[in-house]
Amino acid sequence: MTPADPLAADTGLLAPGRAGSPASAATSDSAYLRALLDAEAALTRAQASLGLAPAEAAAAVTRAAETADFDLASIALRARGGGNPVIPLVTDLTAAVPAEFGPYVHRGATSQDILDSAAMLVAARTLDLVLADLERTGARLARLAAEHRDTVLPGRTLTQHAVPTTFGLKAAGWRSLVLDARDRLRAVRASLPAQLGGAAGTLAAFTAFGADDTRALVAAYAGELGLAEPVLPWHTLRTPVADLAGALAFTAGALGKTAVDVLTLSRTEIAELAEGSGGGSSAMPHKANPVKATLVASAARRAPLLAATLYGAVAAEDERPAGAWHAEWEPLRDLLRLVGGAARDTAELTEGLRVDADAMREHLGHTHGLIVSERLAAELAPVLGRTRAKELLTRAAERAAGERRPLAEVLGEEPALQDLPGVDLADLTDPTRYTGSAGVLTDRALERR
Amino acid sequence: MTPADPLAADTGLLAPGRAGSPASAATSDSAYLRALLDAEAALTRAQASLGLAPAEAAAAVTRAAETADFDLASIALRARGGGNPVIPLVTDLTAAVPAEFGPYVHRGATSQDILDSAAMLVAARTLDLVLADLERTGARLARLAAEHRDTVLPGRTLTQHAVPTTFGLKAAGWRSLVLDARDRLRAVRASLPAQLGGAAGTLAAFTAFGADDTRALVAAYAGELGLAEPVLPWHTLRTPVADLAGALAFTAGALGKTAVDVLTLSRTEIAELAEGSGGGSSAMPHKANPVKATLVASAARRAPLLAATLYGAVAAEDERPAGAWHAEWEPLRDLLRLVGGAARDTAELTEGLRVDADAMREHLGHTHGLIVSERLAAELAPVLGRTRAKELLTRAAERAAGERRPLAEVLGEEPALQDLPGVDLADLTDPTRYTGSAGVLTDRALERR
Amino acid sequence: MTPADPLAADTGLLAPGRAGSPASAATSDSAYLRALLDAEAALTRAQASLGLAPAEAAAAVTRAAETADFDLASIALRARGGGNPVIPLVTDLTAAVPAEFGPYVHRGATSQDILDSAAMLVAARTLDLVLADLERTGARLARLAAEHRDTVLPGRTLTQHAVPTTFGLKAAGWRSLVLDARDRLRAVRASLPAQLGGAAGTLAAFTAFGADDTRALVAAYAGELGLAEPVLPWHTLRTPVADLAGALAFTAGALGKTAVDVLTLSRTEIAELAEGSGGGSSAMPHKANPVKATLVASAARRAPLLAATLYGAVAAEDERPAGAWHAEWEPLRDLLRLVGGAARDTAELTEGLRVDADAMREHLGHTHGLIVSERLAAELAPVLGRTRAKELLTRAAERAAGERRPLAEVLGEEPALQDLPGVDLADLTDPTRYTGSAGVLTDRALERR
Amino acid sequence: MTPADPLAADTGLLAPGRAGSPASAATSDSAYLRALLDAEAALTRAQASLGLAPAEAAAAVTRAAETADFDLASIALRARGGGNPVIPLVTDLTAAVPAEFGPYVHRGATSQDILDSAAMLVAARTLDLVLADLERTGARLARLAAEHRDTVLPGRTLTQHAVPTTFGLKAAGWRSLVLDARDRLRAVRASLPAQLGGAAGTLAAFTAFGADDTRALVAAYAGELGLAEPVLPWHTLRTPVADLAGALAFTAGALGKTAVDVLTLSRTEIAELAEGSGGGSSAMPHKANPVKATLVASAARRAPLLAATLYGAVAAEDERPAGAWHAEWEPLRDLLRLVGGAARDTAELTEGLRVDADAMREHLGHTHGLIVSERLAAELAPVLGRTRAKELLTRAAERAAGERRPLAEVLGEEPALQDLPGVDLADLTDPTRYTGSAGVLTDRALERR
Repeated sequence: MTPADPLAADTGLLAPGRAGSPASAATSDSAYLRALLDAEAALTRAQASLGLAPAEAAAAVTRAAETADFDLASIALRARGGGNPVIPLVTDLTAAVPAEFGPYVHRGATSQDILDSAAMLVAARTLDLVLADLERTGARLARLAAEHRDTVLPGRTLTQHAVPTTFGLKAAGWRSLVLDARDRLRAVRASLPAQLGGAAGTLAAFTAFGADDTRALVAAYAGELGLAEPVLPWHTLRTPVADLAGALAFTAGALGKTAVDVLTLSRTEIAELAEGSGGGSSAMPHKANPVKATLVASAARRAPLLAATLYGAVAAEDERPAGAWHAEWEPLRDLLRLVGGAARDTAELTEGLRVDADAMREHLGHTHGLIVSERLAAELAPVLGRTRAKELLTRAAERAAGERRPLAEVLGEEPALQDLPGVDLADLTDPTRYTGSAGVLTDRALERR
Repeated sequence: MTPADPLAADTGLLAPGRAGSPASAATSDSAYLRALLDAEAALTRAQASLGLAPAEAAAAVTRAAETADFDLASIALRARGGGNPVIPLVTDLTAAVPAEFGPYVHRGATSQDILDSAAMLVAARTLDLVLADLERTGARLARLAAEHRDTVLPGRTLTQHAVPTTFGLKAAGWRSLVLDARDRLRAVRASLPAQLGGAAGTLAAFTAFGADDTRALVAAYAGELGLAEPVLPWHTLRTPVADLAGALAFTAGALGKTAVDVLTLSRTEIAELAEGSGGGSSAMPHKANPVKATLVASAARRAPLLAATLYGAVAAEDERPAGAWHAEWEPLRDLLRLVGGAARDTAELTEGLRVDADAMREHLGHTHGLIVSERLAAELAPVLGRTRAKELLTRAAERAAGERRPLAEVLGEEPALQDLPGVDLADLTDPTRYTGSAGVLTDRALERR
Repeated sequence: MTPADPLAADTGLLAPGRAGSPASAATSDSAYLRALLDAEAALTRAQASLGLAPAEAAAAVTRAAETADFDLASIALRARGGGNPVIPLVTDLTAAVPAEFGPYVHRGATSQDILDSAAMLVAARTLDLVLADLERTGARLARLAAEHRDTVLPGRTLTQHAVPTTFGLKAAGWRSLVLDARDRLRAVRASLPAQLGGAAGTLAAFTAFGADDTRALVAAYAGELGLAEPVLPWHTLRTPVADLAGALAFTAGALGKTAVDVLTLSRTEIAELAEGSGGGSSAMPHKANPVKATLVASAARRAPLLAATLYGAVAAEDERPAGAWHAEWEPLRDLLRLVGGAARDTAELTEGLRVDADAMREHLGHTHGLIVSERLAAELAPVLGRTRAKELLTRAAERAAGERRPLAEVLGEEPALQDLPGVDLADLTDPTRYTGSAGVLTDRALERR
Repeated sequence: MTPADPLAADTGLLAPGRAGSPASAATSDSAYLRALLDAEAALTRAQASLGLAPAEAAAAVTRAAETADFDLASIALRARGGGNPVIPLVTDLTAAVPAEFGPYVHRGATSQDILDSAAMLVAARTLDLVLADLERTGARLARLAAEHRDTVLPGRTLTQHAVPTTFGLKAAGWRSLVLDARDRLRAVRASLPAQLGGAAGTLAAFTAFGADDTRALVAAYAGELGLAEPVLPWHTLRTPVADLAGALAFTAGALGKTAVDVLTLSRTEIAELAEGSGGGSSAMPHKANPVKATLVASAARRAPLLAATLYGAVAAEDERPAGAWHAEWEPLRDLLRLVGGAARDTAELTEGLRVDADAMREHLGHTHGLIVSERLAAELAPVLGRTRAKELLTRAAERAAGERRPLAEVLGEEPALQDLPGVDLADLTDPTRYTGSAGVLTDRALERR
């Protein structure tokens, strides 16, 4: 191993949730460099398309941006001088084109035009990956929900068995969150704008270089990049970044919901769910840890804080701020890759998820019938009176729990319940008969596309 | 003064940003109690409308909810037992209706149905106030932008004068953020759903009480509340709360942008802007502090963290979680009232804002003409060559700054610039002639409604 | 119910975790008003003690501060003008003393001197309550740990049974966190400083009013308040607030650790622990929810974000900042009362906690002996070779799990394990014999006081 | 440029605040790999020192850890399987030692023992760098404060000139924060513990491998690593991580205080301070941006959120949690390197800082004397009566501001002030004579070492 190198690269050693993922690649320093170069080339081409630069310059800049060697580490180091990587990049890109086309590199732009546009490109490319994974997950969850429409398990609230529900409804709920995330990311994806404003957002330099119609220039630039055309330069109007922050933080949480449920239901004592291939342990040969759920849950813990940093940068002073903008760069990238990794892991997790319907059914009996106490209260109240019904049930519940006997049995011994017309204790105490609208709710949720 | 009372009320002593505001009232404990009672009454009415409860019960519950006395402090204290205020509230509401209608209070519901629905009601009512203030602010900013379409001031980046811009463009930018916030809040406002799921989200108890069509029940309930009908119970599908979090955090930032700009431009040395009536000081008679901007900026610092708490609660386990949901209550309320206060303050701030166009113009000269160095570089490069132009300008800039002389004057002494055809140094160095597309950008931004 | 009142008080309706607690009272608006008045009176007394004000003035201000009626709601409303409550408070306090002593009210101070000092007083008073509750909790946990020193239960990692541990070690771990929190809060408590700097932190006004030795004045003021004497005015040197933030956020997490463990071990399927008196449910008569643990867990989710707001306010510009300071007030109070409530709830929770040692023992068998696979691997490796031992164990583990038979039984059928000298399978597979140093670790941890 | 590589390295392209810094190197993936290997080697050596492993094994593992080639990218990728990098690392390290010593690699440990110990090593190494930079900064600030003990400039509160202060006091305040940060980091540095607990924190496997005295083993291991010996394994007792979080977040804020002041005082209109070598601009040849202050301010915006993630991980369930621990890794590293970069930048910033005492003095006149209105109020009140003095001053202040004339001149025209005995208007209105205790406060603050 080499001694610590100041620019030693991060490879994802501390980030198993994203290491090796397409989203990780799409947000790497190389990917950012690629996007920065794409933005520079697009700018020259846009100018050429309006006759503000020679077509040869556009071709030369594009070629250099695509084929020249750029030294990432050197650019990163030299970025310190001016506080951003665009300044040294422009130097290197200029050096990589024939001298006569040098003046057309970055012409009229400010560093933030390029870096913001590149960040939007990176976001767009990463969101495409995330959206594909969300679709995969949504499809898998739809199958799971349909398959388990009538698989009954204990509904759990505040950690305790409450009343029965179905795994179908649970999976349909997971899916609805995933589709909510998809819809929000899609909307943001479609709105990601190019950035072009020049030094202080007036586009003045472009005018100085001959652009009469700066709107056309912005449109051409956005078109070259495949990004939306902004109404105003948004150097300090950070709606696009805030929209990304919110949609990504929500997505992390939405995936996190599935993850925390899988973690709970994978507990050794519950074991209603299991990851297809759990993770091993360095110490215990038998363990099959819910590793993917763990990693997704971990992403869900981090994402809100990254989003908060971005929301905090909206209140940015002046035409370009001293700190707020710089504070966005890494958190936005981290958020994209965290969510990208979590989307991959959730897709794999749901595809491999093993459902133990027998365990679910078995657990319905865990409270000796108390899981249907709500139903009994509802159905016995009209017969016995609300107060008396509640008293009788509380007493029976305590006995059933204390004696570890089925509630139905205990209730059968209550004189007040002998031969009540229209009261079928066996049916009333069958948890699988008390799932309410779980089925139709599942059906309706699955209608959503 | 009384000795410390465990339930001593908070009146806003530490919250000048919202004290006395309509949003503060709309989010008070009383307002929540009101909304909780509204939700209970709506539930009974919805059941009555479907024949599941007597009309008299609905009338009685509604009447009690509207007219009976409820002891907020007692309910708050008793909420500890079950961990939420709905349990004691149901007891008190039941006691406030004739005994025969008691069974129809809260029938089939779980606490979260009522508390979530109430939170959405509170949110809806508060957002209406916020939206009205954003409209006021947007209108005022539109007037400001139009009025100052051509008022030139230094564009500032990383705290330094960059190139000129206009106050019109700045105000148009503020407005665009305000309208972005409005659009996001409006969309969220329209989608706020009622909550109805029963103990574990299956609506089973309603079925036990005779509801054949729970969808109709949910629709009737939502209708009574004026909230949207949800596809699924969302006890642990927290999209509505996350959407509120994002839109509100963004709004705080959007208003914060205006605030931090006002703070900067109000600095004693800059004084291009002043709050109509600045705040006094307990120590210094002469001070006129930008108090409203300060309070709005302070809200913008806090909102992202409150939103992060809410995003963090999306990954909620089970059918109802042990902690995540409870962690939402106060942060959601705080976010609503913080943003409500900030919207009020920004409306007042922008309405009273004083613009000193003379100071703005005067500051254009602060860098002795360097503020147009970008233009000079652009216009001289074709004439002198890029490198030579840059060298010449750097040298002249240093001299102008060092000798505190106008750049135009220094440049006039440069032999290389004598009698250059097509180069009018006086025009080139006039900052008010270098505002690029600021005017047309302002016009275009103001087309948005 | 009255219609929404703009100043309608908050009574804790949304805060069952703190409603009615001493910490809630100690942080109420009334408590802050009390502390503000204490600070004002202390300032006049300090000046009198140095001959800078008449003793009668000190007595009059002290009397007024203690006995006069102050209208909290009015002060809160009027605080908007200057952006803080001290300005109207000074007006009212001045009006409450005989006219000749009016000039000695707030003399030489700035609002922040009083508000910061009051915040430190409130913090000190609340921390005393928190510390007492932490001591209670620590003592209870010490008893629990000692009592259950040898109560074996499954150690759980990534939700899965790993190897056995003891409940004693678990409780000792909880206690060690509680003591860590106590030590940190104690240190912060002892260092909370008074604030006195005047308008811009130079103490100049005090000099103008005749103070030759401002250090003596600051010392006298701090002495009157029972707070530490600061070296420098700390208007924008926010170490004390940051120290509070960190210690309180840590405390919330430390208590949260106990809470999340209680939540997990209270799950219906696990039920190794139960809160002494669980919370009821509005829908299900049988439920006994771990309400206190839920509320503490909810506090632990919120506290880090409140602390982050406070840490974010450290980078405060100028001699007094426009926003950063104002953003501290409510979060600091919220953090104090959240932690205060959580400390109370944890004290009650641990005092009432029921431990089901039988359930713990029973669960050791849940993995059919796999919980000791690590031991087997360790002990068989020297006998069989590492690789062969691992293979054999993996195969046996799969069989035991698949066939739901005890691992000891399955292993007994392995020819390779027949008659191995020094290998006692019964002992090796007994989970209660594989607790390593749990006992001595517990003992050692309990030595800490 | 190569096409996007899934493991493409991050080189700091988006992180000019830390790129190329020693702290960046000390926290790189390579540095973590180094620390992981150090921890593994220390563990084997510790066992050997107690006779639990052959000395040759310890030597072999140490040699392999130091000299063998490890494929970072491969380890990062394979970390996905079990959710952490230690599992594949152990495989590779085992392969790198002679087969007979393989069993002594990682013997008895769990992944978290190694990863936590490595994180503490990385933290220790990084904190040493940070502490050195804080010392540099503290020394420079001491010189600045001494040098400018009597350099008067406007004290600014809520963006407005308040009363005069000195640059010496300001620098002394910056230094006091830096020393506060140093003291907190030092204390944390000294307490960073090794981690050793085995699978569930009972050290059972070590016992199985023959350790009778696990305390001695832990002590030996900690000794090998140069870390503190923990009382208990702290897999889910996260005090060390929380302590790091708090101290680092505070440090970022403490450095951020200097940064935001430099940003403010560097504004074009103020220009009392300038970075020694400001950053250039890609668009504007004349600009000298306060780049280092911008980068430090940006770090101060991010650090509290990273710390919040870590505080949020304290409430970690079970013996090792599913998500909370994993969520710590990157934020802890990010926090270390952010603060490391900010400490470097602040050291350079303060060393290069240019102070324009003339500009400071000149600005004292910016309010036409109003900056001493507090003093006038104090000194005239006894002469004219408090109310009358305030009225007179308010009127004069308005005239001075309105007519842009010195307050002294306006006051000289007030009949009430003619020939007042003991009132020297020229002295009273001289801002440099109204700095209160700024000098002695500075002196006292500089006594701290």
